[in-house]
Amino acid sequence: MIDTILNHRTIRKYTSENISDNDLEDILNAGIRASTTGNMQLYSIIVTRDEEMKEKLAPFHFNQPMVKNAPIVLTFCADFNRFNKWCEARDAKPGYDNFLSFYTASVDALLVAQNVTLAAEEKGFGICYLGTTNYMAQQIIDTLNLPKGVVPVTTITIGVPNESPELTDRLPLDGIVHFEEYNDYSVEDINRVYEEKEALPLTKQLLDENKKETLAQVFTDNRYTKENNITFSNALLKVLEDQGFMNQ
Amino acid sequence: MIDTILNHRTIRKYTSENISDNDLEDILNAGIRASTTGNMQLYSIIVTRDEEMKEKLAPFHFNQPMVKNAPIVLTFCADFNRFNKWCEARDAKPGYDNFLSFYTASVDALLVAQNVTLAAEEKGFGICYLGTTNYMAQQIIDTLNLPKGVVPVTTITIGVPNESPELTDRLPLDGIVHFEEYNDYSVEDINRVYEEKEALPLTKQLLDENKKETLAQVFTDNRYTKENNITFSNALLKVLEDQGFMNQ
Repeated sequence: MIDTILNHRTIRKYTSENISDNDLEDILNAGIRASTTGNMQLYSIIVTRDEEMKEKLAPFHFNQPMVKNAPIVLTFCADFNRFNKWCEARDAKPGYDNFLSFYTASVDALLVAQNVTLAAEEKGFGICYLGTTNYMAQQIIDTLNLPKGVVPVTTITIGVPNESPELTDRLPLDGIVHFEEYNDYSVEDINRVYEEKEALPLTKQLLDENKKETLAQVFTDNRYTKENNITFSNALLKVLEDQGFMNQ
Repeated sequence: MIDTILNHRTIRKYTSENISDNDLEDILNAGIRASTTGNMQLYSIIVTRDEEMKEKLAPFHFNQPMVKNAPIVLTFCADFNRFNKWCEARDAKPGYDNFLSFYTASVDALLVAQNVTLAAEEKGFGICYLGTTNYMAQQIIDTLNLPKGVVPVTTITIGVPNESPELTDRLPLDGIVHFEEYNDYSVEDINRVYEEKEALPLTKQLLDENKKETLAQVFTDNRYTKENNITFSNALLKVLEDQGFMNQ
C-alpha cells in the first residue's frame, strides 16, 4: 500500500474503458471503512455515470474535461440529512443545524474520499480531485438534488489512466512538519522551503505562460485570486446557511 | 492495501513501544503524497512526542487517555501562513484571508491525515482520530503556538496496538450511495438502513448504559447534544475569525 500512496499521480486523461459494478462496489466498500465521528457516517456518495448528468455537472467544474471523459464521477457530500431523519423517526431531537456539525460531516466525507482514491488506485484506476466542488456547491446541489443537511465537499473522477505523468514535486518534509511547537517561518526559511520548487523547469514554464516574475504571483494574480476567493467564500457560506448549518 | 483499508480499526490502547524516527519519516512522507489543491500544500503537521506537551494537550482532548499513552500525537493543521509568507517574500499579494481558503486548506490537511493513517497501519501501527480538535481549536492553537493563518483540523494518535477490537459496524452501502441523484430517505428507507445497527448487541449495551429508549437518543441527548454543538460551533467560528479566515 505504501507504494500505492507514494506513486499517486493525478490522472486527468482516461481510456474509454468502463469500471465494472463489482470494482465500484469494492472501491466504495473500502471508502466507508474510514474512521467516522462516533460511527455516525455523516456522508453520502453520489455516483454519476449517466452522460446527461455529466453534461449537466461539467460547467460547475469549469468544464474540466475529466468530468465528461471519466466513466465515473463521485461527489462526496457532508450529510446530516439521513442522520436527522433517523433521529426524527426515533423520538430523538437532532441538534445538528450548526457549523460544527457541517465541519464534522466534512471531515467524515473527506476521509472516505481519500480511502476511495487509494482503493481505486490499488485496482489500477486513476483519479482526479475537483476543488471546483467548493466553488459551485449550490449549482451541484441543484443538479444532484441534494436536500437540506447535505453539502458536496469534494468530487473525484475515476477511470483507467490514459497518461502516465511524472510524480509531482512536494516541498521538503521539514518545511511542513513541526516538532512540539509551530516554528514560524523566517524569510530564510521560506527561501529554503521553496528553493527546489522555484528551480523546477515547470516553474519556468508557468512563469512564461503566465507572464509573471515569481511563481507566487501565478497563484495570487491568475490561479487563485482574492476576487474569486471572496466570491466563492460568500457563495459557500450562503450554501451552508441555506442547507441549514448556520443556526448557532 | 485494500486489506489495510478494510481492516482498519480505531486503536485506543498502545504498548509502551516507541516509533522510530525512520518509521515516522516514512509515514509523513506518505502523507504528503496526497492530492493538494494546486499543489499548494496548505497544511502543516505538528508532531508531539514530549511528555510535557502531551500533558498540556490532553485536557483539550477531554483527557482521552490516548493522548498521553500514544508515543506520537500528530495535529494536522490547515495552514495558509507559510503560503502567505512565501507570497509576501515574492512580491505577490495573497488574498487568502477568507472562508473558502480555510476550507480548501482543510481539505488538503484531511487528505494528508488519511494517507498518514493508512501508511501507519500498513507498518503495523494503530491510530485514533480525535474529533475534539474541532471543539477545542483555540486551546490547541495556544498550546502548539500556531500563528494566524493556521487552524488545527484533526489529530491522530499513533502507537503499537495493545488491543485488537472487532471491526466496527457500518450502514449498508446502498444506504450511503446514491446513483445519479440523491434519493431522499422515506421512513421505510431509514428503518431499512438502520435496522442492522439497531439490532446489534452494542446498541443494546449503549441503551442500557445511557438509559435511553432509542440509539438515536444516545446521540442527541448524551453524546452530541445541541447545546454542546452550539457552544463549539461559535468557538470554532471565532477561531476562524481570529486566525484570519473570515474577511469576505
